[in-house]
Amino acid sequence: MAKAKQTNKANRFAGRERVVIENVKPQIDEGRFPIKRTIGEKVLVEADVFVDGHDALSCVLLFRHEKNPQWSEVPMEFIGNDRWRAEFTVAELGRYHYALQGWVDHFKSWQRDLRKRVEAQQQDMATDLLVGAELVFQAAGRASGQDAHRLKELAASLRNRRDFSGTTHLAMVDDLAPLVVQYSERRFATLFDHELGVIVDPVKARFSAWYEMFPRSCSAPPGQHGTFKDCEARLPYVAAMGFDVLYFPPIHPIGRTHRKGKNNALTAGPDDVGSPWAIGAEEGGYKAIHPHLGTLEDFRTLVAKAKELGIDIALDTAFQCSPDHPYVREHPEWFKKRPDGTIQYAENPPKKYQDIYPFDFETEHWQALWDELTSVVLFWAEQGVRIFRVDNPHTKPFRFWDYLLEKVKARYPEAIFLSEAFTRPKVRYGLTKLGFSQAYTYFAWRNTKWELTTYLTELTQTDVREHFRPNLWPNTPDILTEHLQNGEPPIFSSRLILAATLSANYGIYGPAYELRENRARERRSEEYLDSEKYQLRRWDLDRPDSLKELIGRVNKIRRENPALQSNGSLRFHPCDNDQILCYSKHTEDYSNLIVVVVNLDSRHTQAGWVELPIHEMGVDPEKPYQMHDLLTDARYMWHGPRNYVELNPHFLPAHILRVRRRVRAEQDFDYYM
Amino acid sequence: MAKAKQTNKANRFAGRERVVIENVKPQIDEGRFPIKRTIGEKVLVEADVFVDGHDALSCVLLFRHEKNPQWSEVPMEFIGNDRWRAEFTVAELGRYHYALQGWVDHFKSWQRDLRKRVEAQQQDMATDLLVGAELVFQAAGRASGQDAHRLKELAASLRNRRDFSGTTHLAMVDDLAPLVVQYSERRFATLFDHELGVIVDPVKARFSAWYEMFPRSCSAPPGQHGTFKDCEARLPYVAAMGFDVLYFPPIHPIGRTHRKGKNNALTAGPDDVGSPWAIGAEEGGYKAIHPHLGTLEDFRTLVAKAKELGIDIALDTAFQCSPDHPYVREHPEWFKKRPDGTIQYAENPPKKYQDIYPFDFETEHWQALWDELTSVVLFWAEQGVRIFRVDNPHTKPFRFWDYLLEKVKARYPEAIFLSEAFTRPKVRYGLTKLGFSQAYTYFAWRNTKWELTTYLTELTQTDVREHFRPNLWPNTPDILTEHLQNGEPPIFSSRLILAATLSANYGIYGPAYELRENRARERRSEEYLDSEKYQLRRWDLDRPDSLKELIGRVNKIRRENPALQSNGSLRFHPCDNDQILCYSKHTEDYSNLIVVVVNLDSRHTQAGWVELPIHEMGVDPEKPYQMHDLLTDARYMWHGPRNYVELNPHFLPAHILRVRRRVRAEQDFDYYM
Repeated sequence: MAKAKQTNKANRFAGRERVVIENVKPQIDEGRFPIKRTIGEKVLVEADVFVDGHDALSCVLLFRHEKNPQWSEVPMEFIGNDRWRAEFTVAELGRYHYALQGWVDHFKSWQRDLRKRVEAQQQDMATDLLVGAELVFQAAGRASGQDAHRLKELAASLRNRRDFSGTTHLAMVDDLAPLVVQYSERRFATLFDHELGVIVDPVKARFSAWYEMFPRSCSAPPGQHGTFKDCEARLPYVAAMGFDVLYFPPIHPIGRTHRKGKNNALTAGPDDVGSPWAIGAEEGGYKAIHPHLGTLEDFRTLVAKAKELGIDIALDTAFQCSPDHPYVREHPEWFKKRPDGTIQYAENPPKKYQDIYPFDFETEHWQALWDELTSVVLFWAEQGVRIFRVDNPHTKPFRFWDYLLEKVKARYPEAIFLSEAFTRPKVRYGLTKLGFSQAYTYFAWRNTKWELTTYLTELTQTDVREHFRPNLWPNTPDILTEHLQNGEPPIFSSRLILAATLSANYGIYGPAYELRENRARERRSEEYLDSEKYQLRRWDLDRPDSLKELIGRVNKIRRENPALQSNGSLRFHPCDNDQILCYSKHTEDYSNLIVVVVNLDSRHTQAGWVELPIHEMGVDPEKPYQMHDLLTDARYMWHGPRNYVELNPHFLPAHILRVRRRVRAEQDFDYYM
Repeated sequence: MAKAKQTNKANRFAGRERVVIENVKPQIDEGRFPIKRTIGEKVLVEADVFVDGHDALSCVLLFRHEKNPQWSEVPMEFIGNDRWRAEFTVAELGRYHYALQGWVDHFKSWQRDLRKRVEAQQQDMATDLLVGAELVFQAAGRASGQDAHRLKELAASLRNRRDFSGTTHLAMVDDLAPLVVQYSERRFATLFDHELGVIVDPVKARFSAWYEMFPRSCSAPPGQHGTFKDCEARLPYVAAMGFDVLYFPPIHPIGRTHRKGKNNALTAGPDDVGSPWAIGAEEGGYKAIHPHLGTLEDFRTLVAKAKELGIDIALDTAFQCSPDHPYVREHPEWFKKRPDGTIQYAENPPKKYQDIYPFDFETEHWQALWDELTSVVLFWAEQGVRIFRVDNPHTKPFRFWDYLLEKVKARYPEAIFLSEAFTRPKVRYGLTKLGFSQAYTYFAWRNTKWELTTYLTELTQTDVREHFRPNLWPNTPDILTEHLQNGEPPIFSSRLILAATLSANYGIYGPAYELRENRARERRSEEYLDSEKYQLRRWDLDRPDSLKELIGRVNKIRRENPALQSNGSLRFHPCDNDQILCYSKHTEDYSNLIVVVVNLDSRHTQAGWVELPIHEMGVDPEKPYQMHDLLTDARYMWHGPRNYVELNPHFLPAHILRVRRRVRAEQDFDYYM
């Protein structure tokens, strides 16, 4: 209303805008941020729309792609308690806008009253019919061609009261009502006063399986620095496991000043390779490639080969410098100086990280800094990279990301950004509101039934889901949880299945994960012993205990079952055993319905009774139904809502069950759909 | 962020505004409407305030009265999870504005890090101390006088590292920290991007007891039209019952065309007085007084006499015309014409209300209509009226009320408007968001424990309470509920006590209420038989079964117990009997704590065990406490959270208990506070 007041003076109709539009969903912070969708998804919009008095109203949902100046329009449907609803589908990458418009519809009021009069057999309706005739005639004036002709006929018939027959005329009016409404008088229409937006991302922003790998550890001969060529040779291995994003830690030259040694030793030996996150050396910075990995040409070839296997190469965007980064020399104004003239290194007192110089985003030259860092992302996009994993975005200003994301997505609307912000919840959400396509989560530290249920419910069933697309990682090079360190080996299987089925986006850091590496550098540390962050590692990919085949099977199940390709339908179901987690996902029409049952205890067999809302699921409570375990191909006959499950983790700690509803009787053989 | 982007170009610091302010409470629809308070109340503001990285921040709550261009400032306090809080008190009528500002506070970060360094006994802190010295020195530059002097001393001491002693210096820094923060560098501060407002009303907007009465029924001799002089004589009666608002149905000349007879008969007899809501006749319209009631001078005298007794006269604002209202002749352009040339009367097909002409708010002359109707309210305000009960506001446009309320409150900020919108919830809330000070509720139709609990919880414990001040009426001239018709006589006592204690604002239509009039015109109708809306009535105020004494006692209890003068503290408490409703209200410090227990069954004695959260109430669970029934003056000893209650409705259907916590031991005699 504050805004309404301002427009009163400007718009001579404003005093007659009687319709109120409020409480529009979805929207984030009253439209300050766009919601997110992927191509082909729906935007279901609801709003409270009402008017003073007893007049009827009409309202429409308006939407347009940013490149299209023309609005499309969908009539909204009344769903009770002054609430209205309509939906549209986003078909193009980029940004859509949506808006709502409502107006008092005198024709609809008249039609409603006509029905009441006819039903009450009111006498003397001559004047009432003339009122309607006038409304229809005015609509005819706004129509043309056949529409105008039909409306004029209706108006004439209403005027000609001699022939009047209540029921016949009412039927005629009802018949043409949609046409009259289409040509409604909208002079006094109200437009919802916030501009609402949708960012449309590619499908991979919603549904992706990530594999993180250190290229320098890919060399076949032990002790030799891996190259992009070695990575090419590794691609079939990654593809066989079913991953479609291959993410590399930074591939740039690594600083020598204050370089860390193996296991994060304060001083490096002459052969120590250093942390790839200490970016920049004489050979170059963010736009350069570590000389041992290969050339830019090698990199582009690798990107292309991966693409042939359906794999996107994702790069790390880690905006911090080693003391040897060329920026330090060329742009000292982008760093903070200490009173002794040295450059401020990163620190968390009393700890000092003298190998890392953070940028000073409060520099007077912030605009040049923003533009340069944006150009880094654009540079790699030009080399074919479309997916960026952003390191610690929460240590750079929100407005900087707002700027960078908008610039990059304006040119590459298909670009995907994964936010690595392991920090407080509001900061994390602040970043995804700005447009990060996906985000790391607290999943690694959510292990009990209660923890997983409450956290995933928050992520998938609250307004958070309009901007925050979770990407679940059971491990990363920085995160070897105590849970993984202390669990029995099946913990790696169960955590993988949880990540891959709770969320449509997930990832692992391999080959450490599939080889169940769980040795920490020290007690109570989440750092890997002999971490690849500081040294080359050689992994025996053919070890018989590797999880690669299980992972391949899980990723195949994800690809074949659309229910697992989004998160909105996730629901948790009761089980009388707290070590057993049961949940389901389904497509909108329930044609694909997956129930997952996981034993959270990696040591012992656990059993219990799970309870499914079979009524909602369209399962006949009177008839048995088949549960097809997509992991083992076993088939179980279940009956009614409560059924028994038993999981021995040392065989397999989970079921991924596809519900196959029986549609024919027994005599029709074994036919299930 | 959308706004942030726009300002990037305009403000050369915008790129360096790193603090984010979100999720500010209280606010209504992101600041589109002001919240409401009464004089002397607090506004407790909370917000999520955060910044990228590890820097500390400071933030302040800003507020000012609309007449004061200068903002006052309160530091906000960190309460966890990136949430900050501060409060201010509204001391003047009118509108306040409030805003939030946050900035990165480098001094605070430095102070925090200094503590860590000292605790870790870090060596070589020379440079770190210089960093701090520089920050303090800069703050000194923004200060003056004694403050500047003290800050310069601190800076010098930090520079002089020879004397450095960790703990001593840290204490010195901590000591002066508030002063440094006071002179913070705010060049890059973020201002919350919505303007937030508070409407400050007089206390009576929050705490009032209304009595509705037809002046024309106040004459002592039967059958004679009452006058304002008769009303004067009635004032002591109303005051004795403890009411402080006396509300009259419309006092204007009543139309003769299509006048309704007794019991809403379609045709009136020659002596029928007509409905006062059919406003306007030859004698005048909204600004005129019905000649039988007296003169404008009589009215002003009555207003003054009432004021002497602490009573405000409230008038009815019913913007609809009888066919005889002068506007119909003078401003035909404000009414809708039908095709036969007649004026459109009110109707709800097939029912016709030919005695009522609604205004056409879609007229091209809407601005003149708005101004004229606004002038009506201003006219009565000039006669001393400050309280307006608005009839059916939901049948006039929202923007019209926005305009009228703002215009009237600009001149009379103490004006109070009660919205009589018996319609759908979103429409009702739409009106109070616009600024109606109080509103009628669905209370009359909420009778069971579940109904009362859920409804009052919605009104007092959700965001609704920021704009909607409920005014509970067990009856009105239009509403004689089936519950009152069919209950045993104690129903009038229990509904009165519920209204008066559940809500700080309540009212009754009398003398019908205190005389327990419960005869309806017909079965399933809520209309009174022989309703005063259409005829004069004479009431025997001295009937021995009148509730006037009980009402007087209840209103006295309300005046003496601040807990009952607002609604925010209302909490319902369990009772194992569904016919017994138990709830409490308390002042902020619990010094006044009232527990109400009501038997909802007007026929039978009901008993049960109620359970109070005595820990929250500051009652010692080990010791007995006294419950003082303010209705009967009885005193009960209770102990622990669960206690027995028994209520015989034919004696009294409720307890209004003041909790008196025992503060001394038994040997100190009977001393309670």
